[in-house]
Amino acid sequence: MQSSRLAQQIQFIVEIDKLKQILRQTLLTDESRRENSAEHSWHLAMMAIVLAEYVPSSVVDVLHVIKMLLVHDLVEIDAGDTFCYDVHANQNKAAREAQAASRIFGLLPEEQAAELRALWEEFETQETAAAQFATALDRLQPLLHNQQTRGGTWRIHDITRAQVLQRMHPIKEGAPALWPLVEQIIEECVLAGYLQPEPKVESPF
Amino acid sequence: MQSSRLAQQIQFIVEIDKLKQILRQTLLTDESRRENSAEHSWHLAMMAIVLAEYVPSSVVDVLHVIKMLLVHDLVEIDAGDTFCYDVHANQNKAAREAQAASRIFGLLPEEQAAELRALWEEFETQETAAAQFATALDRLQPLLHNQQTRGGTWRIHDITRAQVLQRMHPIKEGAPALWPLVEQIIEECVLAGYLQPEPKVESPF
Repeated sequence: MQSSRLAQQIQFIVEIDKLKQILRQTLLTDESRRENSAEHSWHLAMMAIVLAEYVPSSVVDVLHVIKMLLVHDLVEIDAGDTFCYDVHANQNKAAREAQAASRIFGLLPEEQAAELRALWEEFETQETAAAQFATALDRLQPLLHNQQTRGGTWRIHDITRAQVLQRMHPIKEGAPALWPLVEQIIEECVLAGYLQPEPKVESPF
Repeated sequence: MQSSRLAQQIQFIVEIDKLKQILRQTLLTDESRRENSAEHSWHLAMMAIVLAEYVPSSVVDVLHVIKMLLVHDLVEIDAGDTFCYDVHANQNKAAREAQAASRIFGLLPEEQAAELRALWEEFETQETAAAQFATALDRLQPLLHNQQTRGGTWRIHDITRAQVLQRMHPIKEGAPALWPLVEQIIEECVLAGYLQPEPKVESPF
């Protein structure tokens, strides 16, 4: 009874349930567990709605950003979540994710596959204001979580202020109006001892 | 340094992280655990994108539906998820949720609070085609999960075909083009033994 088109769409919908199993490094704000990429994507889409006013509506279509954020992590179903400070794993990330995109978006009817893949590629290539705003939100959210969890993943991995500042840099490009907030949070976290001001120096003794 | 407006927005963004802790009855498709309401909301928003063609675009603005789906469960942070077949808990659901809406949306600057609350109320009152399509997706998704988990929550609670048909009825209104699929899935589930065709009769002996 199902048309093959609808069957493809349902297969995709069932398949993407697996994104709920992909764990990120970020902890939930109550520190009870690690966040998964599906609920993370929801959180970012909500942030796009609430923080839309910090980018000019003439250059950023917020609803386009929401769609981009909803699909931006789908490739992790096959490629996994790559920890942003893991230099080694980031070397082959692009190739792993491109292959994942072909398989996962490829479950859909052709023109829908192309549409969603284009959203993902727009996010990855970071050439549009929409993609840059989406990335700004994708950086801001774990910053908020690390603040709430008193350093959460930073403490586990001995992350320093300089590393976080570098990681947050896309916010300066994609949502400059939010940059003072970012600097303020980072300084508060250093003062509170959640974030190391400088790299730990190994004692020679 | 933060304006109080931005501080309110950030407080809301941090607060809604709690939706990731609200567990629904539905299992993930691999049966590993129950689904939470944040990842569920993400899944529904993805379904709205993929299944938009089954409602006329002249009457349903899909991006409005996406926003509605992203916020539709936020009240559960205070009011909890109410199991749809729990008659008792459903009696005071509306009052509990209205109070939750006041507190949670009330964290935002006034006009944003009003906008998001209006989306939630539109979903609840079910008077627009957008709200009816959103509800159709909210019913279809657990049906797919129950099929994937070989009866999942239905088996635990001895749910019958008649109960599921009644529960799915809004799909007939909100996305009639998807109704044949719903009937097909239900019959497949009955045939496979995932769903009881009739209520269990207690033996008098």
